[in-house]
Amino acid sequence: MNYSPPDQQTLEGVLDTVKFDKDGLIAAIAQSAEAPHEILMLAWMNREALAETLATGRVCYFSRSRNALWRKGESSGQTQQLVSARIDCDRDAVLVLVQQKGVACHTGRRSCFYHEVTPEGLRDTTAPEISAEALYGKSH
Amino acid sequence: MNYSPPDQQTLEGVLDTVKFDKDGLIAAIAQSAEAPHEILMLAWMNREALAETLATGRVCYFSRSRNALWRKGESSGQTQQLVSARIDCDRDAVLVLVQQKGVACHTGRRSCFYHEVTPEGLRDTTAPEISAEALYGKSH
Repeated sequence: MNYSPPDQQTLEGVLDTVKFDKDGLIAAIAQSAEAPHEILMLAWMNREALAETLATGRVCYFSRSRNALWRKGESSGQTQQLVSARIDCDRDAVLVLVQQKGVACHTGRRSCFYHEVTPEGLRDTTAPEISAEALYGKSH
Repeated sequence: MNYSPPDQQTLEGVLDTVKFDKDGLIAAIAQSAEAPHEILMLAWMNREALAETLATGRVCYFSRSRNALWRKGESSGQTQQLVSARIDCDRDAVLVLVQQKGVACHTGRRSCFYHEVTPEGLRDTTAPEISAEALYGKSH
């Protein structure tokens, strides 16, 4: 269950095979290591975020809204520790198996995928486990 | 384990809440219903593909390379039957739980996510279960 990073040279070789899109991004899926049936979230990584994730074992995304690296949990404390990382066949997506501290979703839910399509429309499958205030402080 | 589609009006209401990107797409993650720890693939849907998927229960993507609807399995026979669909918190990604017939990956592997990052670089975690010839015919 422990991730072992490649050395810098090997890591650069891996990164060179990844096909980042025209905005320099790939899609990144986070899956729970403790409960692997649980898909926690989908976010984005640029080369720098993927490099940091694979070098440190702490998951780092790229925030498209902030246009900056997004070290998961740096404001909320809800970090993701990498267990394994897999690139897909056409090398434009990455699946990270992670140990999620607390919840992945900014709404306080464990997973971001909670709007289920039902015959009656969208239905929330889960309730928040923690408030936004507890996650981000009163100023949020 | 059976998906029940909403009626047309309810479906349009659901689709209206989805935030397609500047290219009209959302990311779509396919997860195996039989083996939910298995993430099969990541692809893309436009509004039409998502509408067809949710109306018919047969998963349909949008192929960015062919710029056309991609009814999963229409040439390979490796169809995906929808079990459930969940939209994420910011409504720009969808997670589909599917019954995968055969394999999801065009390489003949069950899952597209098979290039694992190891200290020695990328390592294939799985071998193809079926040949491209068997999947797509000799002309492929």
